[in-house]
Amino acid sequence: MELGGVLAPVPTPFDEADRVDTRRLAAALARWLEHPLAGFVVLGSTGEAPLLDDEESVRVLAAAREAIPPTRWFIAGTGRESTRATIRASRRAAAAGADAVLVRTPGAFKEQLTSDALVGHYTAVADASPVPVLLYNFPRLTGVTLQEEAVARLAPHPNIAGIKDSSGEILLFTDFVSYASDTFSVFSGSGSTFFTAVCLGAAGGILALACVVPDACVRLFELARSGRHEEGRALQQELLELARLVGSVYGVPGVKAALRLVGLDLGRPRRPLPPASAEAVDRLRVALAAFQEAHA
Amino acid sequence: MELGGVLAPVPTPFDEADRVDTRRLAAALARWLEHPLAGFVVLGSTGEAPLLDDEESVRVLAAAREAIPPTRWFIAGTGRESTRATIRASRRAAAAGADAVLVRTPGAFKEQLTSDALVGHYTAVADASPVPVLLYNFPRLTGVTLQEEAVARLAPHPNIAGIKDSSGEILLFTDFVSYASDTFSVFSGSGSTFFTAVCLGAAGGILALACVVPDACVRLFELARSGRHEEGRALQQELLELARLVGSVYGVPGVKAALRLVGLDLGRPRRPLPPASAEAVDRLRVALAAFQEAHA
Amino acid sequence: MELGGVLAPVPTPFDEADRVDTRRLAAALARWLEHPLAGFVVLGSTGEAPLLDDEESVRVLAAAREAIPPTRWFIAGTGRESTRATIRASRRAAAAGADAVLVRTPGAFKEQLTSDALVGHYTAVADASPVPVLLYNFPRLTGVTLQEEAVARLAPHPNIAGIKDSSGEILLFTDFVSYASDTFSVFSGSGSTFFTAVCLGAAGGILALACVVPDACVRLFELARSGRHEEGRALQQELLELARLVGSVYGVPGVKAALRLVGLDLGRPRRPLPPASAEAVDRLRVALAAFQEAHA
Amino acid sequence: MELGGVLAPVPTPFDEADRVDTRRLAAALARWLEHPLAGFVVLGSTGEAPLLDDEESVRVLAAAREAIPPTRWFIAGTGRESTRATIRASRRAAAAGADAVLVRTPGAFKEQLTSDALVGHYTAVADASPVPVLLYNFPRLTGVTLQEEAVARLAPHPNIAGIKDSSGEILLFTDFVSYASDTFSVFSGSGSTFFTAVCLGAAGGILALACVVPDACVRLFELARSGRHEEGRALQQELLELARLVGSVYGVPGVKAALRLVGLDLGRPRRPLPPASAEAVDRLRVALAAFQEAHA
Repeated sequence: MELGGVLAPVPTPFDEADRVDTRRLAAALARWLEHPLAGFVVLGSTGEAPLLDDEESVRVLAAAREAIPPTRWFIAGTGRESTRATIRASRRAAAAGADAVLVRTPGAFKEQLTSDALVGHYTAVADASPVPVLLYNFPRLTGVTLQEEAVARLAPHPNIAGIKDSSGEILLFTDFVSYASDTFSVFSGSGSTFFTAVCLGAAGGILALACVVPDACVRLFELARSGRHEEGRALQQELLELARLVGSVYGVPGVKAALRLVGLDLGRPRRPLPPASAEAVDRLRVALAAFQEAHA
Repeated sequence: MELGGVLAPVPTPFDEADRVDTRRLAAALARWLEHPLAGFVVLGSTGEAPLLDDEESVRVLAAAREAIPPTRWFIAGTGRESTRATIRASRRAAAAGADAVLVRTPGAFKEQLTSDALVGHYTAVADASPVPVLLYNFPRLTGVTLQEEAVARLAPHPNIAGIKDSSGEILLFTDFVSYASDTFSVFSGSGSTFFTAVCLGAAGGILALACVVPDACVRLFELARSGRHEEGRALQQELLELARLVGSVYGVPGVKAALRLVGLDLGRPRRPLPPASAEAVDRLRVALAAFQEAHA
Repeated sequence: MELGGVLAPVPTPFDEADRVDTRRLAAALARWLEHPLAGFVVLGSTGEAPLLDDEESVRVLAAAREAIPPTRWFIAGTGRESTRATIRASRRAAAAGADAVLVRTPGAFKEQLTSDALVGHYTAVADASPVPVLLYNFPRLTGVTLQEEAVARLAPHPNIAGIKDSSGEILLFTDFVSYASDTFSVFSGSGSTFFTAVCLGAAGGILALACVVPDACVRLFELARSGRHEEGRALQQELLELARLVGSVYGVPGVKAALRLVGLDLGRPRRPLPPASAEAVDRLRVALAAFQEAHA
Repeated sequence: MELGGVLAPVPTPFDEADRVDTRRLAAALARWLEHPLAGFVVLGSTGEAPLLDDEESVRVLAAAREAIPPTRWFIAGTGRESTRATIRASRRAAAAGADAVLVRTPGAFKEQLTSDALVGHYTAVADASPVPVLLYNFPRLTGVTLQEEAVARLAPHPNIAGIKDSSGEILLFTDFVSYASDTFSVFSGSGSTFFTAVCLGAAGGILALACVVPDACVRLFELARSGRHEEGRALQQELLELARLVGSVYGVPGVKAALRLVGLDLGRPRRPLPPASAEAVDRLRVALAAFQEAHA
């Protein structure tokens, strides 16, 4: 099974008392499994991972493992601020049955996190992790950019299987793609530039947008892959507003609000994250309706 | 006892195996107690708090409580990404005997952390914390700026005792000072602008620089307080290079390297933080020597 | 003749006494005319337009008009800080025989230049200009970004014929392309993302890179246009380093240095612009050699 | 006469047809001369200098020379993008009777303007100018920051008399002040931090705010100079909102709107600059009334 295609980074549901609600997660996964997604990322940034403690994280992974069949990828987010905590989380994820781990860069001491420091961090994690590691560059979340030179040094590591890039910087993405190989898959994390990313050589996407409109994301991937550029460009344009709102403008609260609009209630984000504002919900509703109409 | 004066935010020592070393912490505190510092912040950002787990944090606080006499302030850093975890950490710190807690803004989902969200976060923490809460604005670390309007709404809370501002933005600091009162103390977090901050009305400073040259920081505070501006300005100028290197340019690795230069070995930073480079150590040595010479 | 294809934005030559040297310009144009470029932009930012006075500008345009045959586009840069001066410069350019004018946004009072202000500016210029106007978005030069909403309002103007975008922001570029039509051509200003831009629907490129390696730029355009994505991607990758160095890293001094390396001496940039450093020349030489070798 | 104190950077009036109106300028200067200002800057950035042509500039300087008595400083803004044009403008200003010239950094090719390039630029200008030169650091306008090391090299030049800093960065300002001497005066360009700047050693201020409330600015200067810090801090706080609105938030349109509110009509800004919005005028009116009430 090749590491690629469209994966959904699933939100973590909370109940009214702000507790993790694994039952709702199982129900949501059951619905997503009706769509041709290649797999799932659990406890990524869309999963509000920085807001969960270790014990909660273990319960979420166990519930996900139960729900996800072996025919789909099951990737766990395990990035932490210290190398030590990242290694521990990766081992727990492997023990819980994850196929791979997605490790965002640390961010707490961004100014000291040179390429050398990040290479050291990822190498230690990859050496220790029982399952393959995916690098994860998400400057808007962490304040840290994984530079090309760091990726050049990390890509050959036998236990590093690829990278997810959510920087939105097309030049940097082009650099990352130049390291793509059978053993190093480059994923886009941005629904609004996904068509371009696949044209440039991405192996797939890990897209919040794919939680909301999974079929359209898979179709966009296939159009780009098969060289049907006219159609692909048109579909990307139709998805653009929704992709922006869900993927960056409104963040996790926006994803949860959009999911409620398509009938999937995963509760509100955990504090201090606020729920999406009424105005945000309105814009999401309009963008979703506009997209659905174009595809009726 | 008024909340003010010069406090040292102490680094957390690690041993060769990357384990927390509370014995070295006790020894360092004993040395700092020989100087007229008003108190200490333990497990702040200089204490590498984001790199410790909960169990380690409890041990560090216990060791600090034992070493710090009741005549000095003992403040614990307890900021976490979720409101829930921040409340739990604040309760543990109070149980460990801290006089107050210093709570940096969360940063993981910066774009969604509106003033409303931050006011909600701090209000919940202050409502739940058994000891007074200090707000903490440190955009360079967290990527989040606590705006004036948020501070205006939080300053009257009976369990919010002040703010530490490490933004380095003089206008924002001026705004914060306009909310200063007997029950709301404004602290500077920047050694390189400390003289200006006290002239503008700061109650004190929580300065990495004060770990390295405590007497000079206390003297700078007193000069500014007593209106001896000529001398204060001159001392600030003499401290400037060192303050910059320790306080921002080289971050926590720089603080640990500077401490070793004055005879206090707190080990290397925890991974992924790298130790200070040889070049950094050289610049620190030169700046320290230049300062000491001016004061011989 | 459709407005599109690859155009070269030509540098302005200066002699040893820092005077405009129109003879060298004519000689350079003669050489570029041997290549299948669609046309030329004279007195754009690569032409150091902000460093010339009005009288010098007139002489440069006259020399260019004489050298450029009517089968190639001759576009003159006429952006100035005031609307009044921009109109005057556009009229002079039309009188000198330019086919169109390229008008960068003003930048001097960037914070006041709202979309309303920019729409007013461009509308007044387009109303008054005897020849068609191209908008020009170049935030790195001007500090101002022409927003999508401004372009949406300007694109229908009968005397506005298109836009050049040098922002490098792929999402903004995608927005601009959504306004493309028979009467509104979208040009990329970035050699390092040119392949992507054409895939996304660009009508062409105005690329400093095309002064240095015109044939390769034209070939890249044709590959992207005809759907030969594998080859196009490979060529873009081979051009990447050179495109970056010439197009952004080293600016106008880099373009002039690269031209000297391919045998075209246009002198040094005008003061305060410094000539390219020895290190810059070395990197350019290496990048050029690497590209030429790949194509030997 | 020592170079220091509070100077007003005067706006340039335009009539209804967008033409320079020197009569209105003379009338405004007559009114400002009733206040104890140390002098005036004509054709600075507040004077919309980048929007005037050379012939207009000459007329403005002639009118100003006629209106300003020799007991006040008359400084002309002469910064241009090229070194050549800056020298020519400085010579014209000297011929028109200016006491000194204020030369903002160029900005058009910001990324290439290294400290070496800027030192070369200012040295050439100072060598050629018949009257003393003031450096001018205004990153928000030009996108360029004059670094400490450049000022260190320029301060000793016999024809460089000082610097105006409008960066608002307190650390950089502190650096500049360390080069202050009898022959090098450091001016603040920011009304909102003026008290702090004088406490830190500024020789004076060139403040848009001083066009609107000249007496208060002069009093703030005197309070800071004579060590009356309590009163000075209070006055600065009262001026803060107005200083921000006039000095940065609303730019030149805001200055002109505020002047109209105090009875001085200098017309609207020149296009593309828009006039202040109704909302801006309202906020200015409220801030002005609040200040005047506090001083009734």
